[in-house]
Amino acid sequence: MSRVEPKTVERIVILGAGTIGSSWAAHYLAQGKSVTVSDPAPNAESRLRGFIDKAWPALRTLGLAPGSDPAAVRFIPDPAEAVREAQFVQESAPETVATKVSLYQKIERTLPEDAVVATSTSGLSISELQKGRLGPERYVVGHPFNPPHIIPLVEVVGGRQTDPAVVEWTLDFYRAHGKRAIHIRREVPGHLANRLQVALWREAVHAVAAGIASVEDVDAAVVHALGPRWALVGPHLTIHLAGGEGGMRHHLEHLGPAIEEWWADLGSPSLTPEVKAKLLEGMDEETAGTPFDELVSRRDRLLVAFLEMQKKEAAAADSTRPGA
Amino acid sequence: MSRVEPKTVERIVILGAGTIGSSWAAHYLAQGKSVTVSDPAPNAESRLRGFIDKAWPALRTLGLAPGSDPAAVRFIPDPAEAVREAQFVQESAPETVATKVSLYQKIERTLPEDAVVATSTSGLSISELQKGRLGPERYVVGHPFNPPHIIPLVEVVGGRQTDPAVVEWTLDFYRAHGKRAIHIRREVPGHLANRLQVALWREAVHAVAAGIASVEDVDAAVVHALGPRWALVGPHLTIHLAGGEGGMRHHLEHLGPAIEEWWADLGSPSLTPEVKAKLLEGMDEETAGTPFDELVSRRDRLLVAFLEMQKKEAAAADSTRPGA
Repeated sequence: MSRVEPKTVERIVILGAGTIGSSWAAHYLAQGKSVTVSDPAPNAESRLRGFIDKAWPALRTLGLAPGSDPAAVRFIPDPAEAVREAQFVQESAPETVATKVSLYQKIERTLPEDAVVATSTSGLSISELQKGRLGPERYVVGHPFNPPHIIPLVEVVGGRQTDPAVVEWTLDFYRAHGKRAIHIRREVPGHLANRLQVALWREAVHAVAAGIASVEDVDAAVVHALGPRWALVGPHLTIHLAGGEGGMRHHLEHLGPAIEEWWADLGSPSLTPEVKAKLLEGMDEETAGTPFDELVSRRDRLLVAFLEMQKKEAAAADSTRPGA
Repeated sequence: MSRVEPKTVERIVILGAGTIGSSWAAHYLAQGKSVTVSDPAPNAESRLRGFIDKAWPALRTLGLAPGSDPAAVRFIPDPAEAVREAQFVQESAPETVATKVSLYQKIERTLPEDAVVATSTSGLSISELQKGRLGPERYVVGHPFNPPHIIPLVEVVGGRQTDPAVVEWTLDFYRAHGKRAIHIRREVPGHLANRLQVALWREAVHAVAAGIASVEDVDAAVVHALGPRWALVGPHLTIHLAGGEGGMRHHLEHLGPAIEEWWADLGSPSLTPEVKAKLLEGMDEETAGTPFDELVSRRDRLLVAFLEMQKKEAAAADSTRPGA
């Protein structure tokens, strides 16, 4: 199978123009590509174009590729037609096996043999989704974080029948189009990032359930101490740099036993009605009447400012590398 | 007991001028206070002054209080002498019960009755430390994050004999001096933030141990997706805002059962020699020969930039509040 060079892909098809699909479309447009979008909903096209217009200012702030055009969208309601010349398909249909499999059945006869189909699924098994498909080896997970046009991460997971070359090609494709793609080497529930998310949240829930701290104080502990380091260097590198010159080796040798004791003491809360009530009450206290929309737009404004800072830093680091 | 108003405290004493104590001293100096510092080590005073000089540029970037003077330090080697007029004592002696108790025994007869003693301990029990002390009700935990002159969080924990008014006073004192103080309502190993830290790290270690992802990709998942949201709004508010208009209530009702299943699937790694070897090998790959000092200074540069952004945002949010 001779597949096109990932960075030269021109024919990108988005299947499903809900929140995730529309955001993917906006992302590729900002990368200077044109996209073909398919969705069976009657008002899908106008919703899509509205989404892109709303997303464009943040994308401009984060940096548009030369020649980007928010109108470079072709809308084709019939998915079999939409994929006819596809090189890469990003599928973001509703999150059930039946819906996705039925969509794959519709496209598999018109889809070019060398096209790759990446599903945005956060919870379904790619091995199950690809079973019985025509050309199962070209199906792969490309799981974004919401919203994909803002958050750089994509998790790439191959199923039992996925061609390893398709996994590599997909990683390269995302990396050539402005994403930070990582390889999830085993199919596990939640891929990787959602597992990390719920692992932290479990102890955050335990702290509230066990009366250790309020919802607001748990958030403050992360916002004003842990979060910045995690956001800037990640959890493993945080530990490496916390140990002084000896780094992670020193940390593992000297604090390993203490950490294992702390691990044993971590909570295993259940989301009982009482625990849910405590969480909701604590969240009401924390948000203190601030309208939901205002909280969301504050988060998004901060996110864009943060990602700008991250981009500048990466550019500065590149320019100081020998040979740059 | 009529204790001085927290914001009018002028006589701050730092016991122990290691990395944490020196950083506390730099923090209070940047807040426009003078400090008295005590440490038995022969070269403690020159090390302290060197630390402050090195810390000052970052403190200037983050904003100095009017009248701040990096030289406003009085060094008194004898702790009993140092605390003679103290209103607030921050103790950062070495992390053993014996060392701290022996220091408390040295100061308890000269310490003014209404002074508060906050210990920087991350791992010892305040109930145990205060047992048998003269005036046990004035001892409390004030646990900072390293380095205290940069990271805003302080965890305040009272012991069995701590006067609840002392806990409140200490929270107010830190808040009046530029810190984000939170109340840990129960004595548990690791207070709160270190529990959250090891909870996330446990799943981060599991991902590597179980072959789900590389060390570098785990860090990337946090840096390029989860971390920014955590750093900007915290884990609970992240969940609240992820659920759309229905917020956390919707999230708990619709995703509660799925989250409990994911919780059940999270890993419980042990730090076996094999796991440690994988972590160290993965960290070597991630850092790829970049000198340790360069990694540390990059993290610190990013941290200061992040905290500046956080401060500006807080100021902007304040100025748009009704009545501001």
